Amino acid sequence: MEVTATDDRTVTLPTARFQAVRAQTDALAKDLSSEDACVQSMDDTSPTKWHLAHTTWFFETFVLAALVKNYAPFDPNYCFLFNSYYHTIGEHFARPHRGLLTRPSLAAIRDYRAHIDNQIVRLIESGLDQTITRLIELGLHHEQQHQELMLMDIKHLFSCNPTYPAYIQPAEVSVREAPRLSYREYDGGTVPLGADAIGFSFDNERPRHETLLQSFALASRPATNQEYLDFIRDGGYNAPLVWLADGWTTIQKNNWRTPLYWREIDGNWFEFTLAGLRPLDLDAPVTHVSYYEADAYARWANARLATEVEWETAASELFVEGNFVETGRLHPQPSGTVAAQLPSQMFGDVWEWTMSPYTPYPGFLIPPNAIGEYNGKFMSGQMVLRGGCCISPVNHLRSTYRNFFYPHNRWQFGGIRLARNA
Amino acid sequence: MEVTATDDRTVTLPTARFQAVRAQTDALAKDLSSEDACVQSMDDTSPTKWHLAHTTWFFETFVLAALVKNYAPFDPNYCFLFNSYYHTIGEHFARPHRGLLTRPSLAAIRDYRAHIDNQIVRLIESGLDQTITRLIELGLHHEQQHQELMLMDIKHLFSCNPTYPAYIQPAEVSVREAPRLSYREYDGGTVPLGADAIGFSFDNERPRHETLLQSFALASRPATNQEYLDFIRDGGYNAPLVWLADGWTTIQKNNWRTPLYWREIDGNWFEFTLAGLRPLDLDAPVTHVSYYEADAYARWANARLATEVEWETAASELFVEGNFVETGRLHPQPSGTVAAQLPSQMFGDVWEWTMSPYTPYPGFLIPPNAIGEYNGKFMSGQMVLRGGCCISPVNHLRSTYRNFFYPHNRWQFGGIRLARNA
Amino acid sequence: MEVTATDDRTVTLPTARFQAVRAQTDALAKDLSSEDACVQSMDDTSPTKWHLAHTTWFFETFVLAALVKNYAPFDPNYCFLFNSYYHTIGEHFARPHRGLLTRPSLAAIRDYRAHIDNQIVRLIESGLDQTITRLIELGLHHEQQHQELMLMDIKHLFSCNPTYPAYIQPAEVSVREAPRLSYREYDGGTVPLGADAIGFSFDNERPRHETLLQSFALASRPATNQEYLDFIRDGGYNAPLVWLADGWTTIQKNNWRTPLYWREIDGNWFEFTLAGLRPLDLDAPVTHVSYYEADAYARWANARLATEVEWETAASELFVEGNFVETGRLHPQPSGTVAAQLPSQMFGDVWEWTMSPYTPYPGFLIPPNAIGEYNGKFMSGQMVLRGGCCISPVNHLRSTYRNFFYPHNRWQFGGIRLARNA
Amino acid sequence: MEVTATDDRTVTLPTARFQAVRAQTDALAKDLSSEDACVQSMDDTSPTKWHLAHTTWFFETFVLAALVKNYAPFDPNYCFLFNSYYHTIGEHFARPHRGLLTRPSLAAIRDYRAHIDNQIVRLIESGLDQTITRLIELGLHHEQQHQELMLMDIKHLFSCNPTYPAYIQPAEVSVREAPRLSYREYDGGTVPLGADAIGFSFDNERPRHETLLQSFALASRPATNQEYLDFIRDGGYNAPLVWLADGWTTIQKNNWRTPLYWREIDGNWFEFTLAGLRPLDLDAPVTHVSYYEADAYARWANARLATEVEWETAASELFVEGNFVETGRLHPQPSGTVAAQLPSQMFGDVWEWTMSPYTPYPGFLIPPNAIGEYNGKFMSGQMVLRGGCCISPVNHLRSTYRNFFYPHNRWQFGGIRLARNA
Repeated sequence: MEVTATDDRTVTLPTARFQAVRAQTDALAKDLSSEDACVQSMDDTSPTKWHLAHTTWFFETFVLAALVKNYAPFDPNYCFLFNSYYHTIGEHFARPHRGLLTRPSLAAIRDYRAHIDNQIVRLIESGLDQTITRLIELGLHHEQQHQELMLMDIKHLFSCNPTYPAYIQPAEVSVREAPRLSYREYDGGTVPLGADAIGFSFDNERPRHETLLQSFALASRPATNQEYLDFIRDGGYNAPLVWLADGWTTIQKNNWRTPLYWREIDGNWFEFTLAGLRPLDLDAPVTHVSYYEADAYARWANARLATEVEWETAASELFVEGNFVETGRLHPQPSGTVAAQLPSQMFGDVWEWTMSPYTPYPGFLIPPNAIGEYNGKFMSGQMVLRGGCCISPVNHLRSTYRNFFYPHNRWQFGGIRLARNA
Repeated sequence: MEVTATDDRTVTLPTARFQAVRAQTDALAKDLSSEDACVQSMDDTSPTKWHLAHTTWFFETFVLAALVKNYAPFDPNYCFLFNSYYHTIGEHFARPHRGLLTRPSLAAIRDYRAHIDNQIVRLIESGLDQTITRLIELGLHHEQQHQELMLMDIKHLFSCNPTYPAYIQPAEVSVREAPRLSYREYDGGTVPLGADAIGFSFDNERPRHETLLQSFALASRPATNQEYLDFIRDGGYNAPLVWLADGWTTIQKNNWRTPLYWREIDGNWFEFTLAGLRPLDLDAPVTHVSYYEADAYARWANARLATEVEWETAASELFVEGNFVETGRLHPQPSGTVAAQLPSQMFGDVWEWTMSPYTPYPGFLIPPNAIGEYNGKFMSGQMVLRGGCCISPVNHLRSTYRNFFYPHNRWQFGGIRLARNA
Repeated sequence: MEVTATDDRTVTLPTARFQAVRAQTDALAKDLSSEDACVQSMDDTSPTKWHLAHTTWFFETFVLAALVKNYAPFDPNYCFLFNSYYHTIGEHFARPHRGLLTRPSLAAIRDYRAHIDNQIVRLIESGLDQTITRLIELGLHHEQQHQELMLMDIKHLFSCNPTYPAYIQPAEVSVREAPRLSYREYDGGTVPLGADAIGFSFDNERPRHETLLQSFALASRPATNQEYLDFIRDGGYNAPLVWLADGWTTIQKNNWRTPLYWREIDGNWFEFTLAGLRPLDLDAPVTHVSYYEADAYARWANARLATEVEWETAASELFVEGNFVETGRLHPQPSGTVAAQLPSQMFGDVWEWTMSPYTPYPGFLIPPNAIGEYNGKFMSGQMVLRGGCCISPVNHLRSTYRNFFYPHNRWQFGGIRLARNA
Repeated sequence: MEVTATDDRTVTLPTARFQAVRAQTDALAKDLSSEDACVQSMDDTSPTKWHLAHTTWFFETFVLAALVKNYAPFDPNYCFLFNSYYHTIGEHFARPHRGLLTRPSLAAIRDYRAHIDNQIVRLIESGLDQTITRLIELGLHHEQQHQELMLMDIKHLFSCNPTYPAYIQPAEVSVREAPRLSYREYDGGTVPLGADAIGFSFDNERPRHETLLQSFALASRPATNQEYLDFIRDGGYNAPLVWLADGWTTIQKNNWRTPLYWREIDGNWFEFTLAGLRPLDLDAPVTHVSYYEADAYARWANARLATEVEWETAASELFVEGNFVETGRLHPQPSGTVAAQLPSQMFGDVWEWTMSPYTPYPGFLIPPNAIGEYNGKFMSGQMVLRGGCCISPVNHLRSTYRNFFYPHNRWQFGGIRLARNA
């Protein structure tokens, strides 16, 4: 387990923390029908039911089965059905087929969750050694990742339904106007990158290390829908020179002309949201753009995206606060008043694409067993996003947190913050 | 409407007939969860919920909306969502996306059925003219087709689940042995083909016309699993000379080496059935083979498949009786005692692939409106199958009935009856 | 060999006949560069060099290797490289890779041809038994088929070059106007179909047999470019109701809106021909349409395509004469004066799509060895075309000749003759 | 033009240098037939003829057309046909269709080269300003890149031919044994990365900048075929845990089990080379592996690949010397005696995959016009390779040179040098 290698924190895990995270997952799925929870709308997504089961399978497999002598699995089929990509554990069920599992039912999966929760709680209360405590802690962060995936995936599923169902009731319409865009300047120098040993962090955030940074400037807020619409109207999608070669190929092949969930109806722009189809808020941050679109927009705007180290340097001065899942809005909001000299909305609202490919930090060693498959094996072909979004749990995030998606992915809440050479 | 052109029968439609067919559809779906009813397992299939709604949409659109002045649709979205391929009526929802409709719910669709049923019953009881009566009759035959599709599609869905769920409880195992295969000889001459004006028939069965037939011989029963296993063990799937060129390409590309639902486990053969995974009954007719496999098997066996006219000539002497959906077995059974000189199992058990492409009969004219899209536009690239199968309603069939599938389709209960030149 | 089964003609084969056919193949390739002769423009086509080699391989394999004791092949690699689809003979080189064979060179293949020709001529002059004589006769008809394929394939290759090279110099422009379309009526009755034993015929034309025919009417000439343009301008490609379901899918998927080689440039219509890009001759027969397009056009025109037996019945009264490869025009020409009561251009100009799927005639038995692979194994999924075209050799054709292509194929000279029920 | 922005060198360009590079291209194509030079074997490759024309088009478009008043193009079609991906210049001919251009002929393209060469030479001799001189210098480096591509592409084409043609005569077999693998250690610190302003460099090598490097160790030589065979025999291709997730998917989908050109024949290993199919030299560096395979091999070997900065730091101490195209062997050779403390074969033999994604250096700005499309737009999804290979021109390389390919690409001479944390 990678924890032992680099993690000498002492961790305590109150039952309440475990129960709160698990209950939040259930709460997110509460209003979905068993039909909603069963269907998979594309290869990249998973059904809600699968998320509910897979996060539970994690605790059953890595905690109970590892710890309890002669552990009898809740259902032996589940080991196979709800493994995601842990090759060490055994053959996994092909990802694009997850949506075909009408059995076990949603009700059965809820029983599964309750059953495993009971056992884990009993285990916690019986007193745990540090290794297991850290494993459960990892499982809870893993579960929080899946909470966000659940909402992303439900949004995509509902967007495929011509009746545009709403997952939540729409909030009142924002009347905030986006403040004027400006740039904050940062000096270069030797700066740290990555997480230290104080709190929890994923293996991919470690080791914390020094890096040389050049001076740069960072936009005061993310790009808005209005600004992105300007890009579209200026012919951005028809201008090969602002696109990466792979980006140009991708938008031609998929016939992309707007962000994923935009719809033009009778000359007016709408956006599919978790509250259904809503008029596009021009002052809100643009979202559901691919890396290619973010990069092209930046080039069109005579700017670029930030690097990881630039982003983290700026973010390290800020509190982790903003529009997260706890606000209940589940959609990016226009920036409020902006504190002088500090960039706003670095956390929450939209994940910000960086120009940094997702690679291991110097000294990162992929641990040798199943948990080791956690992050390292995805370190090719993906780009880093930073800061969390409107459907992330606030206590899941930190300034060193690295999210990653393929440059063509759009169903996550990816947004754009511009940067410049100083 | 094609009925007027070629149909001068007087049709009466008792309420009970309407209700019986509609109730049978509901009964078939009764034990499915809303999850089972929502998911689509491949492009060719549809969810049960979609079948339930689409058959209802047929009555709403072609009867109620056509007849009732200022008819207010049950839900305007349904016109779009549950149209199948009737271009005249309006844009239809792309077939491969039917499984993404988690809304409307199964419960809502059941309400829809009840609502439309009420109105149709009221209409029937108010007295109908012949045109509408015939339309409803057509709608009921259309519904019976979808009853069979529902079972085919559920079987395919469940087969994708590694836990192999059962749609029904398995019946006791048959102990019948398949009788020895022999051939019945038939004289050639001028014979009729197609349906006359006595009872209901689809447009594609008409007009009845004379055709010249050469003498032929027809197998006394369908090919069995044992016989097909002999073909496999003799290297049938590795012998290009017994295959049509398209067939050889198809089995290579899809890596087919057995019928669709066969599974070899530890050296024993099993078959996925609507009663779950069961040991392969070697005496039962082989089923879920493509046309290519049926044709290759026949060539390997020094025989051929029958033509439509050969099949119909032989079948016209027989009663429509056998193993249909009403037996509740929902799987082909071994042949019983065979009446001297008559082929057995011509009806029921398995649809028998003929070597006849699905083409219009001489004089068939595709009618000019939406109902006209019913059959004619599928008359390319498909092959005719005859006789019905173990999941067909018995009163849906007749000796002139023409079913049709693409030569690569396997999820219907397609089987093999050999024929020979006399 | 299928000849023995059904062929008791006595065949004589003068050396001159062999040499003439072989020389014609060489002549067709004479003006092509070795580059032209090497490249393959799509999976369906083959390079000229491959045609030159494969037709030679046929004689080497089926005649020399079968007849000459201890025959030493010209080059052992050729057995593998230039086999087309004769599984009996051995593994064949994947069709889509034929264009990768830059070696052996065109010059080497020309040597190969000369070498095998010498040996075959010596063999003929030494006196042959009937079996071998018939095999060589078959090889020559096989070669004539490839002569036509060579021109089809070169046309397709050149059409992919933005500079639109010409294979021949353009002829003077025709000034003929297409005569008015009328219909000739034919009585029904019992009529023969297929080839008798008098001259050469392919196995798929046999056995000649009786069939029952209903009265019908046949168009006096093929549909013209003007008429097809009317169909386009009337929205034919946007009217789902006139299309077969597979046809509608095909034109959407491939975005077809005109025949294969039409190009609209600044509002004027051009057509790519073997003489380069030429203004579209509105009076000439439309060509390079798929079966789907032919069928849709016919439905739009309130007509249908003819069946094989209808076409053959009408054609059997006519001489095989018209615009074939020998005219050197290599493109369909407008119809000339039309003899009263006889349809014109039944032979030559364009292959006429029939509505008959390509199936075996009653009693046709696929012969058991390699030559048996000749035709039978293609009898699925394809449609019959009749009459030959402007690039067919005239002495290759007859009224019973059956050509066949998939309904989506367009690179052959497929055209449209309308028919009607009488 | 990016040169002006960052390049204040004074460049002189003797006619002889221009002629030498151009003549070398012609020499590489000399023994190819016009057929060899015309065919394209996959989407990633281009025909030799296209390389010959495109490199000429570069000089015609960016030098002659830009400089000569009222310049009349050699052939206006060539602007369109031989543009590669310069969107600024105009629509380009789709890459996968390059192999369909049988016209213009190879002879015509040779004329084109001679014609343009004459004009450029006259221009050089008439005296050039610095901007044009630098453009021609860029064109010559561009041409050298295409010299390498030509050989890569010819090798791939010939490998598709079952007769395995040889581009050159095989050299005598090497008898060198690979020296034992050891590691050289390097201290960390602040080190430079990238090219200074002394000699020519591409835009992607600039600006030279400081970076923080941790201590590391680098393998004394590339991994050999013997070592890679050990990986294969140890089940490397069946061990998901040593693969990146994308790598595992790639090898499953393509069924990769060895490097690209390995062939096992009767239990012996062979390798397709530019000298034909040759026994695998177990002491030579393994080549034609993808990044995924290089990375998996490294993980299996308890090591990793080097980063760009590690590689460049080690290479900056070495002369650019080794097995390049000038040796005429055109295949990697076993390492010779190894100088103490210095890694061998850093230059030549095989391009060494680094673990660094291909991204812009800090401060790199993509220039705004056509030449600006040169490198920047490929900076996504690709990985950097360093050092040059056995088919690279020696004077094209330097320690700062960055080559880049997609992680799945294998047709370049990609090889493996291991690294470790110190």
